[in-house]
Amino acid sequence: MDITPNLLASLTGGKVEGDGDIKIIGFGKIEEAGPGYVTFIANPKYTHYLASTEASAVIVNEDFEYEGEIRPTLIRVKDAYSALAELLTAFEASKPQPSGIESPVFIAPGVEIPDGAYIGAFSYIGEGVKLGKGVKIYPQVYLGKGCEIGDGSTLRAGVKVYEGCRIGSRCILHSGVVVGADGFGFAPKGEIYEKIPQIGNVIIEDDVEIGANTCIDRATFGHTVIGRGTKLDNLVQIAHNVEIGENNVFAAQTGIAGSTKIGHSNRVGGQCGFAGHIHVGDENEFGAQSGIPNNVGNRNRLIGYPAIDARQFAKNQVYLRRLQDFFNKQNNKK
Amino acid sequence: MDITPNLLASLTGGKVEGDGDIKIIGFGKIEEAGPGYVTFIANPKYTHYLASTEASAVIVNEDFEYEGEIRPTLIRVKDAYSALAELLTAFEASKPQPSGIESPVFIAPGVEIPDGAYIGAFSYIGEGVKLGKGVKIYPQVYLGKGCEIGDGSTLRAGVKVYEGCRIGSRCILHSGVVVGADGFGFAPKGEIYEKIPQIGNVIIEDDVEIGANTCIDRATFGHTVIGRGTKLDNLVQIAHNVEIGENNVFAAQTGIAGSTKIGHSNRVGGQCGFAGHIHVGDENEFGAQSGIPNNVGNRNRLIGYPAIDARQFAKNQVYLRRLQDFFNKQNNKK
Amino acid sequence: MDITPNLLASLTGGKVEGDGDIKIIGFGKIEEAGPGYVTFIANPKYTHYLASTEASAVIVNEDFEYEGEIRPTLIRVKDAYSALAELLTAFEASKPQPSGIESPVFIAPGVEIPDGAYIGAFSYIGEGVKLGKGVKIYPQVYLGKGCEIGDGSTLRAGVKVYEGCRIGSRCILHSGVVVGADGFGFAPKGEIYEKIPQIGNVIIEDDVEIGANTCIDRATFGHTVIGRGTKLDNLVQIAHNVEIGENNVFAAQTGIAGSTKIGHSNRVGGQCGFAGHIHVGDENEFGAQSGIPNNVGNRNRLIGYPAIDARQFAKNQVYLRRLQDFFNKQNNKK
Repeated sequence: MDITPNLLASLTGGKVEGDGDIKIIGFGKIEEAGPGYVTFIANPKYTHYLASTEASAVIVNEDFEYEGEIRPTLIRVKDAYSALAELLTAFEASKPQPSGIESPVFIAPGVEIPDGAYIGAFSYIGEGVKLGKGVKIYPQVYLGKGCEIGDGSTLRAGVKVYEGCRIGSRCILHSGVVVGADGFGFAPKGEIYEKIPQIGNVIIEDDVEIGANTCIDRATFGHTVIGRGTKLDNLVQIAHNVEIGENNVFAAQTGIAGSTKIGHSNRVGGQCGFAGHIHVGDENEFGAQSGIPNNVGNRNRLIGYPAIDARQFAKNQVYLRRLQDFFNKQNNKK
Repeated sequence: MDITPNLLASLTGGKVEGDGDIKIIGFGKIEEAGPGYVTFIANPKYTHYLASTEASAVIVNEDFEYEGEIRPTLIRVKDAYSALAELLTAFEASKPQPSGIESPVFIAPGVEIPDGAYIGAFSYIGEGVKLGKGVKIYPQVYLGKGCEIGDGSTLRAGVKVYEGCRIGSRCILHSGVVVGADGFGFAPKGEIYEKIPQIGNVIIEDDVEIGANTCIDRATFGHTVIGRGTKLDNLVQIAHNVEIGENNVFAAQTGIAGSTKIGHSNRVGGQCGFAGHIHVGDENEFGAQSGIPNNVGNRNRLIGYPAIDARQFAKNQVYLRRLQDFFNKQNNKK
Repeated sequence: MDITPNLLASLTGGKVEGDGDIKIIGFGKIEEAGPGYVTFIANPKYTHYLASTEASAVIVNEDFEYEGEIRPTLIRVKDAYSALAELLTAFEASKPQPSGIESPVFIAPGVEIPDGAYIGAFSYIGEGVKLGKGVKIYPQVYLGKGCEIGDGSTLRAGVKVYEGCRIGSRCILHSGVVVGADGFGFAPKGEIYEKIPQIGNVIIEDDVEIGANTCIDRATFGHTVIGRGTKLDNLVQIAHNVEIGENNVFAAQTGIAGSTKIGHSNRVGGQCGFAGHIHVGDENEFGAQSGIPNNVGNRNRLIGYPAIDARQFAKNQVYLRRLQDFFNKQNNKK
């Protein structure tokens, strides 16, 4: 079956303006997409590309306005970005998925491999591991004793999960993720540090995605928790006994120190650092590289080191820029 | 043998107050531990949980004071945190340890596997590697030519050690650690950069623990050194020719640039950055996210970007908060 | 053939002062090199070591000046650092290189292994992968479907490359590098985040070196690009659709957010963060831990959070240090 603007509109509940029957061969960015490609405009600052794009069709919001001639076919949808996500998901789902057990693998006696699962070569499935339906375990993955992986989760090549950790359904863990390494806990004893064994685990709830080389440490006791629907980018550090709620997004290289509790629906920029043993509420937004030393309530917009209200931060930058004039004035008054 | 408060007290040199014969089934945090569990109070700010905890026994410091009725059995010890570490260590040691050689593995001809060692599946032991007694090499580890691993050290799944590096005794390297990758050394030659081969190695002394995905680069010449008893958290970066002394702790995501020398017993917060070619003394404390551009002496408490005395940093924050008032005043005087 | 100062001089176009026939057994740093070793002085601040070094020969710049007696043989060259790089490269090239196919490996049917290639044990070569001449694929590497690796490139143990990514010639990827993991793209849909499939890829041009555990995400559409000759240190994060030009150097733990475009010949310190969707020109220098929120032109020297001109940053530090005095003065005037 050919892919056409009419088909895309029917998949996304959209309306076609222009030729609905041209053949679509791929997706592309508006500034790069060539003939036969479908693209999208979700952010108004890309609207001007409509004059020059060579794409054959453009997905736009239903209230999209443009003065001037429009050459490509438009597909008007409720939310262009979300419609794009749906189409790409359908496109991805149509690709052949890996399945079966490659060779060699190490599977401990007694472990059951469910139908439809994929176990890539050189993966290690320890004693007592439980795998959900349709799991995709790419090559070179390590699952320690007693781990549980929920239905439909995907662990890309080289993921390591230490013993006793639990990962929910429909999770995606990218290459190099380490789940359940020992928390950083030491008791000073004279001049040396004595290791405090970390006997808890990590629980990752459903629909979590974790970026490449991110680390989530096991709890000293109890659980380190990543709540349902939360997304962690690459190279993020989650220390022992941290508890994160639902539907948060954490950009790359952010770190959260031990025992901190974070609510739901927070958006955190890259390279932020959260102190240990603090509480952060819901629906906050943290600018990149912020340092958060203390408790935070709900619905704040913070940035800085230490993090303050984002408007105050912007004002302070103005004052700092004026500090030089200011000193000169004071010197002149002497 | 049942575990009881009397047994725990005898293991830690403590004294029992209350029923010393109840059966203990596990360890837990004071706010979560249920009946049958033993917990601890090391930090006075958790004392108030004593009224509500369901734990059966609580380890406290010998001078612990509490006004009110105490339901659980108390075990008074010299240092509650340290006693806890001892008990958890005994508990961990009682678990069955992996041993033997799994299959498949790659072991270069001539390498001797000592008695009591564990070599996990898919691990690669290169030519001339020397392994100490009781080493635990988890699956998917890589040991390049001529590496040495001391007695009783543990390399968790997926650790990579480049050729010629030496790791001491009783070390723990967590998953994803990379030891001995090339230092970042390039000589500009016109517009391009020419690689300077890195022909040194890395030496990790005894009793070092290294967190997940931490990187320690090999020296250009000579050695990059991590001193005895030093602990590195996850995602730490140690550049070529860095030399770190004994019993330091570095929290996650900290980076140390090339050729910097650091003494002993320093405590470094997360996400700190140390410039290259500097000297840092002993027993300093660095706040999280600090940037350290210059030499540092001994016994300082520093924070900030660039790092300054911690008290001065706190004062500056006050001044910055007052800067707005200040500008307003000056404007009114005009 | 013995290595002597005369031989080293002939290899680097240098002139010998002193005994040109002594036997050289290795390279070392000037403060550590013993008898039989050759060392170098490129930075004048190391000149004073010439009095005490035990090295047998020292490579110096042709205009090197020293008052006092010189015991070791000198080799005067145009550029000591560059000459050193050449000699070390020759030394490295003389070492035996790994070659052949170890066992076990997973090689998908139809993949051709070129002559002179090395495929280490436990490596996974997916369907349709194309390997250039002389590639060195160390153990435990993963190459997803359809990847291409150019002539003479080296992938150290445990590198992971997702499907469809292209790596040029003479590249070096260190252990733990992840190329082509999904970009961090989600569309908010009510309270949850819906994944936007990332259907682009990563293109790494020729002569790029990438440090341990660095992550380069695949593009949503199109390509994430690392330009020819650019060098990335360890633990760097490159987000989706970033495009980096030629001959840049990025120190460790730096992060670049999505869709940012960077020109050529920039030098970036450690732990810097670049915002998404910005443009950075050519030949800029960024101090460590800088935060770059906006577009940057050419040939700037910037530092700070947010990054400002480096001279202004230094002045601001002075003003901040004087702020305390300043407040006291103002209070006294009341």
